[in-house]
Amino acid sequence: MPDTDVEVGADVAAKEKMVLIAASGDLDKAWPVLILATTGAAYGMDVTVFFTFWGLGILKKPGVGLVGDDWRQKMLSAFKKGSPGGLQLSTLNFGGLGARMMKDLADDNKVASVQELLDLAQQMGVRLWPCRMTMDLMGLQTEHMIDGLDRPAGAGAAISLMKQAKISLFI
Amino acid sequence: MPDTDVEVGADVAAKEKMVLIAASGDLDKAWPVLILATTGAAYGMDVTVFFTFWGLGILKKPGVGLVGDDWRQKMLSAFKKGSPGGLQLSTLNFGGLGARMMKDLADDNKVASVQELLDLAQQMGVRLWPCRMTMDLMGLQTEHMIDGLDRPAGAGAAISLMKQAKISLFI
Amino acid sequence: MPDTDVEVGADVAAKEKMVLIAASGDLDKAWPVLILATTGAAYGMDVTVFFTFWGLGILKKPGVGLVGDDWRQKMLSAFKKGSPGGLQLSTLNFGGLGARMMKDLADDNKVASVQELLDLAQQMGVRLWPCRMTMDLMGLQTEHMIDGLDRPAGAGAAISLMKQAKISLFI
Repeated sequence: MPDTDVEVGADVAAKEKMVLIAASGDLDKAWPVLILATTGAAYGMDVTVFFTFWGLGILKKPGVGLVGDDWRQKMLSAFKKGSPGGLQLSTLNFGGLGARMMKDLADDNKVASVQELLDLAQQMGVRLWPCRMTMDLMGLQTEHMIDGLDRPAGAGAAISLMKQAKISLFI
Repeated sequence: MPDTDVEVGADVAAKEKMVLIAASGDLDKAWPVLILATTGAAYGMDVTVFFTFWGLGILKKPGVGLVGDDWRQKMLSAFKKGSPGGLQLSTLNFGGLGARMMKDLADDNKVASVQELLDLAQQMGVRLWPCRMTMDLMGLQTEHMIDGLDRPAGAGAAISLMKQAKISLFI
Repeated sequence: MPDTDVEVGADVAAKEKMVLIAASGDLDKAWPVLILATTGAAYGMDVTVFFTFWGLGILKKPGVGLVGDDWRQKMLSAFKKGSPGGLQLSTLNFGGLGARMMKDLADDNKVASVQELLDLAQQMGVRLWPCRMTMDLMGLQTEHMIDGLDRPAGAGAAISLMKQAKISLFI
């Protein structure tokens, strides 16, 4: 292992990059995003997840009420509450029963929850980038989001990173 | 800047490629497709978008009536009218109210509309490829589509291009 | 063409790789997965499809009844029957009528069915990897799946392969 800052820097620079775009706030998309991100990090990759549009819901702090100054932003936040523990299935959701059943089933099968995977991702150095433009669109501010995120970023930053990445996926 | 055709050609050949596959006709997928395409072009990339299956709806000319010779094609065109301004949300659509609300909200937040992004993409030289096979499947012909598209292409052409691309995403 | 094992090996090693992640069990996603996989193979690529979560439904043997020991797994298998011939559309499905109409329309337009594309993919040497973790989650075992699949694999194997691939798509 390198033991100086310079060498560590060189080592980091040499790491292969994975970029994931998380554009959906569904439980059945949040899982693959975070399983790929943490597995990639475990395999030594330098991983960044760019959360945009509905995907921002994955990062919402639990218990945040209505969001935004505009009635339309408030409606969006009322209908899509989000938060790591509050995601719903894209199919077979049955008003939340399906999502609850799937989470229990996952738990019994030792599949980590979205909250646990987010914690793990942060511990492993996965960068979590919320999309600035869609945060503004939905009236979301940093205080509405979970702790430990990187600063909001734009599509240009995501593209610059994907150009250097070995793996880029839109999920 | 290069000032001869030969050098321009060399410059174009050296541009890094981005290929996006647009397979969904939902507003919340059309936006990321076109924001990534135009941002990529602004960052100097050579961008191609391959529109297939429901994604063809993004390219439908407004006001086109029933499409196709077959009653099933006619039904598809009746239920999925498409057109840049007529796209619907994949979630919270509420019979079109959600899509209208989201478009108004985007407009107030200076987010370009799908129509504006398509125009911008064309001006920036983004290539828009409709998928030949799914056009035939749905009974769509060139006169049903917006102007300025490239000739219909097949999956093989998309794959050949993705093999050379720095960024390929299925959206 | 090479005519010894060693040369064949060298030839295979030199093939460009495509990796597709099939995470949806909808007909309108199974089609692009399998059309890209078989077209990629026809263009000389070394193709692997990793089927996970709802995407496992594409590989379910027709006529398999309730699956799993757990009531929740049984419910999942009852509501998402899957099988190559039994997939449903993500939109305009109308309780299965839309999917049936689309399959008939595809058939009349000489578009291969999911079953035919799976057979073709296997004949062309496309590797079909079911995801081990989500098979366990859903209580699926090898006997519930169609013949000729590769052994269940994990996310790490998919990532290792994508790192070497020219084209990686999440569909």
